[in-house]
Amino acid sequence: MPDVDLQALTCPAPRTEHAQVLLGHGSGGRMTADLIRRTFLPHLGNEFLAALEDQATLRLDGFSGSQRLAFTTDSFVVRPIFFPGGDIGRLAVHGTVNDLAVGGARPLFLAAAFILEEGLRLADLERIAASMRAACDEAGVCLVTADTKVVDRGKGDQIFITTTGIGLVPEGCRLSIHAARPGDRILVSGTIGDHGIAILSVREGLEFETVLESDSAPLCGLVQTLLAAGLAIRAMRDPTRGGLSSALHELAEASRVGVKLSEPAIPLRSEVRAACEMLGLDPLYVASEGRLIAVVAQPDAERALTVMQSHPLGRNAAIIGEVVDQHPCLVTIRSPLSTERIVPMLAGEQLPRIC
Amino acid sequence: MPDVDLQALTCPAPRTEHAQVLLGHGSGGRMTADLIRRTFLPHLGNEFLAALEDQATLRLDGFSGSQRLAFTTDSFVVRPIFFPGGDIGRLAVHGTVNDLAVGGARPLFLAAAFILEEGLRLADLERIAASMRAACDEAGVCLVTADTKVVDRGKGDQIFITTTGIGLVPEGCRLSIHAARPGDRILVSGTIGDHGIAILSVREGLEFETVLESDSAPLCGLVQTLLAAGLAIRAMRDPTRGGLSSALHELAEASRVGVKLSEPAIPLRSEVRAACEMLGLDPLYVASEGRLIAVVAQPDAERALTVMQSHPLGRNAAIIGEVVDQHPCLVTIRSPLSTERIVPMLAGEQLPRIC
Repeated sequence: MPDVDLQALTCPAPRTEHAQVLLGHGSGGRMTADLIRRTFLPHLGNEFLAALEDQATLRLDGFSGSQRLAFTTDSFVVRPIFFPGGDIGRLAVHGTVNDLAVGGARPLFLAAAFILEEGLRLADLERIAASMRAACDEAGVCLVTADTKVVDRGKGDQIFITTTGIGLVPEGCRLSIHAARPGDRILVSGTIGDHGIAILSVREGLEFETVLESDSAPLCGLVQTLLAAGLAIRAMRDPTRGGLSSALHELAEASRVGVKLSEPAIPLRSEVRAACEMLGLDPLYVASEGRLIAVVAQPDAERALTVMQSHPLGRNAAIIGEVVDQHPCLVTIRSPLSTERIVPMLAGEQLPRIC
Repeated sequence: MPDVDLQALTCPAPRTEHAQVLLGHGSGGRMTADLIRRTFLPHLGNEFLAALEDQATLRLDGFSGSQRLAFTTDSFVVRPIFFPGGDIGRLAVHGTVNDLAVGGARPLFLAAAFILEEGLRLADLERIAASMRAACDEAGVCLVTADTKVVDRGKGDQIFITTTGIGLVPEGCRLSIHAARPGDRILVSGTIGDHGIAILSVREGLEFETVLESDSAPLCGLVQTLLAAGLAIRAMRDPTRGGLSSALHELAEASRVGVKLSEPAIPLRSEVRAACEMLGLDPLYVASEGRLIAVVAQPDAERALTVMQSHPLGRNAAIIGEVVDQHPCLVTIRSPLSTERIVPMLAGEQLPRIC
C-alpha cells in the first residue's frame, strides 16, 4: 500500500515563474518541461513537437508503403570533453543514434554542427573527429553534412556539437511514449547512472578502485534485436539527462498512467551507489547514455528480458517495475523494506552539462 | 587582358599551420576550407562530405523514382541576436531553408537545437521562438523536433541555434557546384553585403540616413520559380559567410574553372559601399542572407535574369560575370576602369559571428 495519498496529487505539477534562463532549464526535469511547454510550444507548437517524443516521425510523398522517416536533433555541451569511456564526439553520435533507435528507426544519416571556441586545440578537435567516425561506423550511420562556426574566447566552452539524425521506421512499428498501458512491465537494459557518475568523478576528482566508465553506446543493435523478436513493445526511451526518473515521468505523463518501480530490481553499480551517497545524489536522476528502457506488454516481458540479456549491451537487463492505473502521471518506488514513496520530477539541476 | 600572370598561380593555395582554433577558422574563407580539408575530412570524409555542397542529397530505399532527400545543418552564433531586419531565430530558419533551396530541394522539415546561456531573458527567447515560427510559415517548412541545452554563464553567448533541414529534390534536378562550365553566366539576385553591414552597423554604432536592414529571406520561392522556368541552371549558392567571393571560390575550385566578375555589374547599396569604405572592408567578402547566386548556361542567362527580376526577391538581379577556362580555381574582377585583378580567397576573418 502506498505511504502517501497519491490520488491527492494532481498532474501537471505547479509552475514557477522565472524571467531568465537558469541552469535548471537544461536539466531534463520539470524546468525543462516548463520551458518547452511555456516558451517554445506556444510559438512553435505543432502535432510533431507537441508529441514530445525523442524523434519526429514523418511521412513523405513518394515513399513506399507506410515507412516513415525519423528525425531528431540534440546539442551536446558536456564538460569535460574527454572522460572515461568516451568524449563529446562519441556521445554526440550515440545520443542522436539512440534517439532514433528508441523510436524504432534504423539510423541512416547524421548531420553534425560544431561550435568551436577560439583557442580549442586542433589536436583535440582531430581526436574528437576520429572518435565520431569510429562511433558512426560502429552504429552503421554515415555523417553526410556538417557545419563549423567559431566563437570568440570566453563566449563558448571549447566545443559544442549538435548532431541531427535521419532514420527509417519500418512499416507497422508504432512505438510511442503515449502507448503505455496498465499492466505493462518496465525493463532497463543495464546499470543506471554510469555516465553521469563517470563525468562527475572527473569533475570532482573522485577515485574508485577501478575506473568507472561512461556507458555511452549505440542502442540501435539492441533495439533491432528486440524488434526482430516480435515482442509487444509499447515504448522505448533512453534515460539520459534527468535519468530514469525523467524518462519515466515523460512516459507517465504522455500515457496518463502511473509507474511503479521496485528499488531492489534496478541494476546499479556499487561505485555509482557509493558516489551517489557521497555526493548526496539520487541515482534515479543520474544520466545513462547507453541504456534502454523498454515498456513491454506483461505476457512478453520475460521473453523481452531474455532477448535483452542475450545482447552484449543488455547483459545486466532487469524488469524494474510496472505500469499502473492508480496514480496517473506519478512515478513511485518501493524500497527494499517495502515502503513506497513518490519519485518527484527533477526540480532543479543536479548535474549540469552531463551531455 | 589580365594585369597579373594568372596562369602562374596554382590552386589550392598554400596552407598555414596552427595548433589552435582561431576566429578565422569560422570565416568561410581559406582557413575554414583548411580546417575542413585537414581536420575533418581525413577522419569523417565520405563521398557526401567530400562533395562540399551546402547540403547532402541522399537516396533512400523505398523512395519512388529518382527523388532524393536533401539534408543540411548550420549553427547560428550571430551577435547581436536582434538586428535590423531580423534576429538569430529568423536567420537560423532562413539559413537552413536556403541551403536546401540552392540544392534544388523543396524544404519540408526543420529541427532546431538551442544552446542557451544561463541568464538569457526568457522574453528574448520567446521573441526568437515567435520569429522562428513566422519564418517557418513564410518558407513553408514545419519545425518538427527540437532540443534545449543550458550552459553556465560565461560559457556561451546568450543563444546559439542549430537548425537542420530536410527537403525533397525532384527527379532530374542536378544542381551542383561541380557543374559549372566555361561560358556559363553568373547571376546574383540582388544587392550584396546588406546582412553583414546591417549587423556591423549595430555593433559599431554606424548610422545611415535610412536604417540598413539585413536581407535575410527564404530563397525557396525564388529558386522554385527559376527551376519551374526550365532554364539550364548548373548550380546555385547563397553568398553567406565569406560573401560572394567565398561562394564563387568554392564553385571555381569544385568545377575546376575560373570565374570572371564585372565590378560595375554587381548590385551594391550606396550605404553598403559607404560603410565598406569607412571600415576598410571589401563588399565581395561581406555576407548576404537572402541572395541567390545562379550559374546559368549562356543561352538561358538573359531569360533567367528576367525570371529573377520578376520575383519580389530578385528585383535587383544582375548578370555579374562568367565562367572561364583560362584560370581554373581563380576568381578575378574587372574594375570600372577595365583593369582586372584577382579576388583572393578570404585569408583571415573580417566579420566574425555574422551568422
